[in-house]
Amino acid sequence: MSGSSIGVLFRVTTWGESHGPAIGAVVEGCPSGIDLIEEDIQKVLDRRRPGRIVSSSSRKEEDAVKIISGTFKGKTTGTPISLIIENKDVNSSAYEDIKDIFRPGQGDYTYFKKYGIRDYRGGGRASARETAARVAAGAIAAKIIFREGIKIIAYTKALGGIVIKLKGDAAKKISYDDIAGDNLMCPDPDAARKMEAKLEEAKLSGDSLGGIVEIIVRGCPPGLGEPVFEKMDAVLAGALMGIGAVKGVEIGAGFKVAEMTGSQANDPIAPDGFISNHAGGILAGITTGQDIVIRIACKPIPSIAKVQQTIDVQGKHVEFSIKGRHDVSAIPRIIPVCEAMVSIVLADHLLRQKAIAHE
Amino acid sequence: MSGSSIGVLFRVTTWGESHGPAIGAVVEGCPSGIDLIEEDIQKVLDRRRPGRIVSSSSRKEEDAVKIISGTFKGKTTGTPISLIIENKDVNSSAYEDIKDIFRPGQGDYTYFKKYGIRDYRGGGRASARETAARVAAGAIAAKIIFREGIKIIAYTKALGGIVIKLKGDAAKKISYDDIAGDNLMCPDPDAARKMEAKLEEAKLSGDSLGGIVEIIVRGCPPGLGEPVFEKMDAVLAGALMGIGAVKGVEIGAGFKVAEMTGSQANDPIAPDGFISNHAGGILAGITTGQDIVIRIACKPIPSIAKVQQTIDVQGKHVEFSIKGRHDVSAIPRIIPVCEAMVSIVLADHLLRQKAIAHE
Amino acid sequence: MSGSSIGVLFRVTTWGESHGPAIGAVVEGCPSGIDLIEEDIQKVLDRRRPGRIVSSSSRKEEDAVKIISGTFKGKTTGTPISLIIENKDVNSSAYEDIKDIFRPGQGDYTYFKKYGIRDYRGGGRASARETAARVAAGAIAAKIIFREGIKIIAYTKALGGIVIKLKGDAAKKISYDDIAGDNLMCPDPDAARKMEAKLEEAKLSGDSLGGIVEIIVRGCPPGLGEPVFEKMDAVLAGALMGIGAVKGVEIGAGFKVAEMTGSQANDPIAPDGFISNHAGGILAGITTGQDIVIRIACKPIPSIAKVQQTIDVQGKHVEFSIKGRHDVSAIPRIIPVCEAMVSIVLADHLLRQKAIAHE
Amino acid sequence: MSGSSIGVLFRVTTWGESHGPAIGAVVEGCPSGIDLIEEDIQKVLDRRRPGRIVSSSSRKEEDAVKIISGTFKGKTTGTPISLIIENKDVNSSAYEDIKDIFRPGQGDYTYFKKYGIRDYRGGGRASARETAARVAAGAIAAKIIFREGIKIIAYTKALGGIVIKLKGDAAKKISYDDIAGDNLMCPDPDAARKMEAKLEEAKLSGDSLGGIVEIIVRGCPPGLGEPVFEKMDAVLAGALMGIGAVKGVEIGAGFKVAEMTGSQANDPIAPDGFISNHAGGILAGITTGQDIVIRIACKPIPSIAKVQQTIDVQGKHVEFSIKGRHDVSAIPRIIPVCEAMVSIVLADHLLRQKAIAHE
Repeated sequence: MSGSSIGVLFRVTTWGESHGPAIGAVVEGCPSGIDLIEEDIQKVLDRRRPGRIVSSSSRKEEDAVKIISGTFKGKTTGTPISLIIENKDVNSSAYEDIKDIFRPGQGDYTYFKKYGIRDYRGGGRASARETAARVAAGAIAAKIIFREGIKIIAYTKALGGIVIKLKGDAAKKISYDDIAGDNLMCPDPDAARKMEAKLEEAKLSGDSLGGIVEIIVRGCPPGLGEPVFEKMDAVLAGALMGIGAVKGVEIGAGFKVAEMTGSQANDPIAPDGFISNHAGGILAGITTGQDIVIRIACKPIPSIAKVQQTIDVQGKHVEFSIKGRHDVSAIPRIIPVCEAMVSIVLADHLLRQKAIAHE
Repeated sequence: MSGSSIGVLFRVTTWGESHGPAIGAVVEGCPSGIDLIEEDIQKVLDRRRPGRIVSSSSRKEEDAVKIISGTFKGKTTGTPISLIIENKDVNSSAYEDIKDIFRPGQGDYTYFKKYGIRDYRGGGRASARETAARVAAGAIAAKIIFREGIKIIAYTKALGGIVIKLKGDAAKKISYDDIAGDNLMCPDPDAARKMEAKLEEAKLSGDSLGGIVEIIVRGCPPGLGEPVFEKMDAVLAGALMGIGAVKGVEIGAGFKVAEMTGSQANDPIAPDGFISNHAGGILAGITTGQDIVIRIACKPIPSIAKVQQTIDVQGKHVEFSIKGRHDVSAIPRIIPVCEAMVSIVLADHLLRQKAIAHE
Repeated sequence: MSGSSIGVLFRVTTWGESHGPAIGAVVEGCPSGIDLIEEDIQKVLDRRRPGRIVSSSSRKEEDAVKIISGTFKGKTTGTPISLIIENKDVNSSAYEDIKDIFRPGQGDYTYFKKYGIRDYRGGGRASARETAARVAAGAIAAKIIFREGIKIIAYTKALGGIVIKLKGDAAKKISYDDIAGDNLMCPDPDAARKMEAKLEEAKLSGDSLGGIVEIIVRGCPPGLGEPVFEKMDAVLAGALMGIGAVKGVEIGAGFKVAEMTGSQANDPIAPDGFISNHAGGILAGITTGQDIVIRIACKPIPSIAKVQQTIDVQGKHVEFSIKGRHDVSAIPRIIPVCEAMVSIVLADHLLRQKAIAHE
Repeated sequence: MSGSSIGVLFRVTTWGESHGPAIGAVVEGCPSGIDLIEEDIQKVLDRRRPGRIVSSSSRKEEDAVKIISGTFKGKTTGTPISLIIENKDVNSSAYEDIKDIFRPGQGDYTYFKKYGIRDYRGGGRASARETAARVAAGAIAAKIIFREGIKIIAYTKALGGIVIKLKGDAAKKISYDDIAGDNLMCPDPDAARKMEAKLEEAKLSGDSLGGIVEIIVRGCPPGLGEPVFEKMDAVLAGALMGIGAVKGVEIGAGFKVAEMTGSQANDPIAPDGFISNHAGGILAGITTGQDIVIRIACKPIPSIAKVQQTIDVQGKHVEFSIKGRHDVSAIPRIIPVCEAMVSIVLADHLLRQKAIAHE
């Protein structure tokens, strides 16, 4: 209840700072008897790894995950699963220069105000590095939901103002294969090339870019979500808004509903299913069985090379620019994090629904 | 943990169905010694009441709240505060006709799938009526945050496609006085008149409208929010997305960040404070001390007079139109609900921060 | 998390003070489709009612429970069940005299220290009256566990120093019928008569008596309990120690284990089951499938007619004696409360185990 | 909520199995700015270490704790503190022989029933080894309560039927110094010598012994504990009963209250404080400011060399005796575990009370 845990039955607690010895997660409530070895998690974690493209940090994060508890002979035992990822290639000295400076757009100022103390090395706990632990935990959640036939796909919908264009109902059919080969996990190759150009341009100007990620959940059974404060959309929104860079979350038609009428927004139901999906797969906070459709707005990476105005801990004006290794955009590395958060939420709610299942 | 409770230290549990004998809330964790009488809550609850305007349901909800526990001689005692609002003017017979029909855009289908049973009278627990209990509980939360100097104002930003226009920094200065006199709680009188015309038009055509509400929190101290899963923005997003009609939530610049660069989105800090507020008052999930700025997208009321296509519990095709008394838009009645949810979240986090306050 | 709630999936929140308008409970997480009408609860609640015997308060507590939400046409819907019991025959004026006095053995002093304020009417929230709400909620929990074949029986094991004597394995076979006819819910008629004499004697001398209650759970499936902090014995101990009068809880052989050797205490296992039950049906915090055996120590009612030494809110010495209507012993009225707490714990853990059930 | 976490604001999650690579704990909610280095924890952990006496396992558990997160430059930062203790000197091969056997008095049978799978190496998660993680976390809790002037002392009250005798109010004055020099942490040297003889005797006969530990909390402020389900005595009872060997918990006069009258059991209050302490420092679930006095009953170690009757996973009868290295009694090693659990509970409730503190 102190903020580093999420979930009721399937519960994930993350710990660790960017430049401490390691980060990790404890996963409680995973059912027993599920096949689980380190490679299962590593595979997912590798999708979050900095890539070859300009948008990626040049810090070499090996992110080798270890399972320290909760499995025996390749199967989960039902006890807490402890995951650890050592922080390698850590160079804290770069942060000595900025230890008294509140970097704009970062948690420096607010952590200092909240705790009266600050681990200034690489953003400490506020660093995006913490999300590697979420991705690792999410890989376990994914195992739980996969065996129920649920699949999650997330991709770049917009970056630096470039929005993907998909013909017809292509969006409904996007698969891992469509994005796996793309550096930006973008299903529209034309848009992807323009996005890369934008990234290159931003990098040269010492700036960074924001974008939009769309997440689609397929095969989710109806009935998940706990009214009224833990509705599926409420919990998903909280889980996704809790990712550092996210400033907006919308479900189904999202903000467009503001301009729709009821007769447009309501999804008619036919004997063989819903006719449209403006609701994004959730009605009254409970899944309908349709695809769950979510979009998140991702702000530009705040660490930029451009000169910025700020203050130091004494409140004095400071001009500074960031020299460290940084991504130009949180996209695409935020995508596996989004998938992880959605997986964790769904795994928890699947288990909760099992508890009260009616005949 | 079964969905009807929110908060850790300041914890609200609501109960009740639209057409049962009553609805209510239990408020746990309210500090002792706070002045609290029924009128304090009633005043806030009355703001949610159906008004004179076309957008409002003609059901006469008196919504008289009673405090059944937790106060003594006009002060809170620290024990749970039980609030009850009787359901008056309830006419369930109107719902007998639709008891086997899954109304589009409502929780009928999903509640049936989840629970295998359904209280079909007026939407049961999925009815917006449940939010009256939230508003009542929120009035207590508001007392806690008001004494720390925090104020919340929420207003209609858009309705039926009409968006308010405010000159200069008028948005920053909007007060209760600016909206109290307006039927739609809209601070732009020109826009308000157009919105009313739109509502009238929708009503005539048997349809309904969506819109956008903006919520501004002023005077919030820095340091509130619990990284990493109970960040202030995460918890606010969850709390607001858990209101029935809400399909999107954004903080600060929100979805606009997707098109911004880092140098545009970062808020520079000067010795006398932040220079801009694209972050919407929250950095790394912790309040900065600036105004918290949130917008929610509100879908059109799903209950419309127009004929809709749907199925019944046997899966057979049905054409039907709704005849009951219904609002044309959830706006403005959703506004006090938004304020309540934000108040509840802030009260909880204020108490949590007191527990770990550093010198 | 503010103390008035118990359970994770099946969650009970009680509210209300002894002399306020009503007391009640909200029961979250009850599965849908369970037959439930007020009579089901009333029947159980009546077992807690003051009886004809000398040990009972002469206050006439009608304790008529109302179900305000969560059921429809006699079945649970899966939504929160709100229960209300009005406080009738309330006479607060008797408490005006002691409003500044800290009664020994009561919560007066500690509530004042904790909250800085006190609802002095009849002990307020610290009154045993609050347990009526637990019993009502427990009746719903009992429905959940009964349908899985679990039964709970609790009875008076000792009172005022008189301990029951049961021949052979009579204890294993005690049924409701054995105690239902007895004023003290005691299965040993000889002991019961001596206990009644003790009660009469204590009443005449203006004093009160303590005792021991034994609770036996039969038919509990193996596998319930969540290591390591929510072990079945841990949760039961917490739930029972949270009843006002309870000062000790023991499971199985209990405090006798201190004098046993391992070869005595270990329960050997034969192909057809455990050979003994010193463990009291719980091993490593998980139920074995044997009877769960628990005993609680119940302190004498602190409200006595004898003169007592204490202080008032100004810290000045006061001599006083209590004149109100009070039980001479918490036994037997505490027995249904014990059953309720055990039912609530088991219902919660049954649901939790369903969530992770292996094939 | 899956059993491996305890506490609301100060929250400890343990993970790890006896013969896995490591065990550990994540401590959430520790306030920032507290001095904390590994030595602080190691010192406490060493008190749990197997000693020189006959009662102790000869397994060499070095139990070197590492702090992996949550501190910076020797101070807590407010973020989760991750503690890891590697499992050294681990020899799992000894357990291959008993992998299909349900050892009496152990969690083998119940873990198998619950999870359908079993990590049979050294008891897996059910091993007392898990408590090392609690002790490490408790050392952090102790720091929080020590700075408020709270001190905890726990000692051997009885072992193998030998009960300590203390003259006058010696019990009230027992200090760490009185027990630190004693192998059994027993404040009565005569009794201690007899206990050691008993242990020697039990060891020779291949058996084990139970006992009683008394825990005294001094300097606790009044007002801690959250009625009605998280009363201080309820939470302490749950926390202590959750230690593997514990079969009974009592507060203050404990089970003796069953034979007392109200005039004996009530603690009169004088202007300078309570005159007696039968309540054990807790009234109505809230601390009084007096010493908190708790006793727990500790069962004999179930792993004994004597031949025992049991079954294997196929349900077939097996005779077996345990050959591994095992303690003869859980006492005195359980003592630091009791202290840790009490520290964790008090730290949590101290923080919770700060949140609602009245003026």
